[in-house]
Amino acid sequence: MIYLDHAAATPVSAKVLAAMMPYFTEQFFNPSAPYLPAKHVRESYESAKNDLAHAIGAKGVDLIVTAGATESINLAFTVLNQFPGSKCLTLATEHNAVLEAAKSHTCALVAVDKNGIIQLDDLRQKLSDDVALISVSLANNELGTIQPLAEIAEIIRQIRQDRLQRGIMLPVYLHSDASQALNLIDINVARLGVDLLTLNAAKCGGPKGVGALYVAHGVKLQPITVGGGQERGLRSGTENVPGVIGFAQAATETKAHLSSHRKQYQKMADIIRQELESIKTPVQDQDPALHNSIIAQNDKKVNRKSQFIRFLGNPKHQLASFISVSFSGIDAERLIYRLEMRGVLVSTGAACAANKGIKSHVLAAIGLSDAEIAGSLRISLGSTNTLENVHEAAKIIREEVEHEYQRMERK
Amino acid sequence: MIYLDHAAATPVSAKVLAAMMPYFTEQFFNPSAPYLPAKHVRESYESAKNDLAHAIGAKGVDLIVTAGATESINLAFTVLNQFPGSKCLTLATEHNAVLEAAKSHTCALVAVDKNGIIQLDDLRQKLSDDVALISVSLANNELGTIQPLAEIAEIIRQIRQDRLQRGIMLPVYLHSDASQALNLIDINVARLGVDLLTLNAAKCGGPKGVGALYVAHGVKLQPITVGGGQERGLRSGTENVPGVIGFAQAATETKAHLSSHRKQYQKMADIIRQELESIKTPVQDQDPALHNSIIAQNDKKVNRKSQFIRFLGNPKHQLASFISVSFSGIDAERLIYRLEMRGVLVSTGAACAANKGIKSHVLAAIGLSDAEIAGSLRISLGSTNTLENVHEAAKIIREEVEHEYQRMERK
Repeated sequence: MIYLDHAAATPVSAKVLAAMMPYFTEQFFNPSAPYLPAKHVRESYESAKNDLAHAIGAKGVDLIVTAGATESINLAFTVLNQFPGSKCLTLATEHNAVLEAAKSHTCALVAVDKNGIIQLDDLRQKLSDDVALISVSLANNELGTIQPLAEIAEIIRQIRQDRLQRGIMLPVYLHSDASQALNLIDINVARLGVDLLTLNAAKCGGPKGVGALYVAHGVKLQPITVGGGQERGLRSGTENVPGVIGFAQAATETKAHLSSHRKQYQKMADIIRQELESIKTPVQDQDPALHNSIIAQNDKKVNRKSQFIRFLGNPKHQLASFISVSFSGIDAERLIYRLEMRGVLVSTGAACAANKGIKSHVLAAIGLSDAEIAGSLRISLGSTNTLENVHEAAKIIREEVEHEYQRMERK
Repeated sequence: MIYLDHAAATPVSAKVLAAMMPYFTEQFFNPSAPYLPAKHVRESYESAKNDLAHAIGAKGVDLIVTAGATESINLAFTVLNQFPGSKCLTLATEHNAVLEAAKSHTCALVAVDKNGIIQLDDLRQKLSDDVALISVSLANNELGTIQPLAEIAEIIRQIRQDRLQRGIMLPVYLHSDASQALNLIDINVARLGVDLLTLNAAKCGGPKGVGALYVAHGVKLQPITVGGGQERGLRSGTENVPGVIGFAQAATETKAHLSSHRKQYQKMADIIRQELESIKTPVQDQDPALHNSIIAQNDKKVNRKSQFIRFLGNPKHQLASFISVSFSGIDAERLIYRLEMRGVLVSTGAACAANKGIKSHVLAAIGLSDAEIAGSLRISLGSTNTLENVHEAAKIIREEVEHEYQRMERK
């Protein structure tokens, strides 16, 4: 099996598992219990939170541990609760967790370009005096598109100054869902200029069911679960000690190998792109006159095959591990099944949406046609990949796409 | 070390750990992904939910998986959101998670007796036409007191009929926090008559960070985290597959050995009670006249030592694994420290409260004096205990309590 869906889930590494193990067994104590062995567990927990925070340039006290990115996002949006009448801005390409959390509030969408990148001019226009929160993912979960967070933060800084001068007291905060980014981007909350940042263990070699929310000093949230008052009263419940230990270990590991991994994924992604570019598509056998008229309607620089094969996003502003590609006219669900028969595991997009047979809202938002959406694959590289298995997978994908195109032509 | 605080945390058994392990590594797939290996993970997940549900006489679809009891409780209370103006009833002895969740709504407290048992007459009186939820734990987390859930359910059934006849459409639901009970009581949701039941993996040999809420057919909740729509849209976020597998394994194991474990804990608890009853308390050396006047002020059946040693709760309506005892005049925090020095780990009460040095609201609610509360211990037996280590621990506790009483007398 060659796994190319690391954006959906990642295996827990041997080191991460080894780090967690004692906290299931000998070190099982409730970190709030009064005896020394429990206090040691508390220390390990807080120390893991510190390690995790350090991976994003923060301190342990700045993190609220949650059960995953979805909960972190929901918690981040509670920042709006203290400002009745305020609204939030986000993108149509955001993960459902962001879009659904935004729905509980007044929300407007900022435009994105065809690569899924936020249109900063539109952001400036929509940043009215009642906006208290902007939520933009650091890297999109279907396209891998990296958003210009620092530029957004700079705009927000200007807005803050402007509001201050005009005596408008409503603050404006920046939240970013960095679920997909921790193992590929050197995240530093101060450099990014975010006030709230969502992290997800399960996307970077940590265990499922663990996430965190970075909360900058002075940002006030409202708990969504109340009780024993853990996590500064913002998230009650006995601490998931092994989960946090595992998350911290995964984040530390991933941080240590960030640039070498990125280079490696870049090389692998190039192999796949090159192989997919060599796919024989129906257009090459078509009448040249017809073909020319088709490409004339499109951008001049457009590839000969572009009406069939289109790489989504822009590699310059994309996670190195992501290849999002559309094979227009092909039924990607059929393709995924055929690839699986040959041992290659890929996905059409977000697992939670793919599962329900819902058309990707992300691809629709960047202007893809229904045929392009129906034929799109998300290939996401990760720890289980090697140059060898990527080479092999790329060849298999090419063959299967060609097979599907030949089948189309025969029809 | 002899661990006597299983109500705070339990180690994960070897079998549970073994069941979880593959889902961290080879079976790491996102259960919503479209390929077969992921579908197998989905099947394992749903099958584990079924196993877990069977342990309480329910079906997998009736369970919403959460990150723990606190989240389950918070989710249960959302049943009130659809009935503006409605209120809930609970007990002053409930866990903070219940009391805090209740605070978000209009709430009244039903009286408890000196053992912490709900006063059914008071419940009947307070069950006004605007009550939509009653939340009563199956077993109290500090006393181990088992509540007469079936009797409460019967009262609710009568109220429902009465409301129906009078044309009052507001439903009334029964929620029970069964966090402490799963490994000691043969739970059957139909027999208990509950509409909502909170379960906690970490208290019965499962992993931390996993819980579930049983939701009877037709009971409508409001999600507290929105997103990808997992768990019937009531609790979004990628499923914690290993966590649920572990929880189900723990619940199945515990269910299989329920009655033998109960008998064993009963025997161990008797050993401890017997040993503690033989403690030499200051009263025995006091002037008999003074002593007699003290006991005359109290109940006639009162034990000679009762002004110093008082077993809390009533063993007949208590979890077999719980011994809650108060040594009036003794500083329990000092005692805990001294016991720890001799290798015995016990707690004063709920870990999350003990940690903050807050006086137990549970013991205050059953009418204990400040001195009694300050001198109270919660001893909770579990999988790490044997007759031998319980004998040993009981002797050490007796010796240390006697030492503390001697110290008191010298003052």
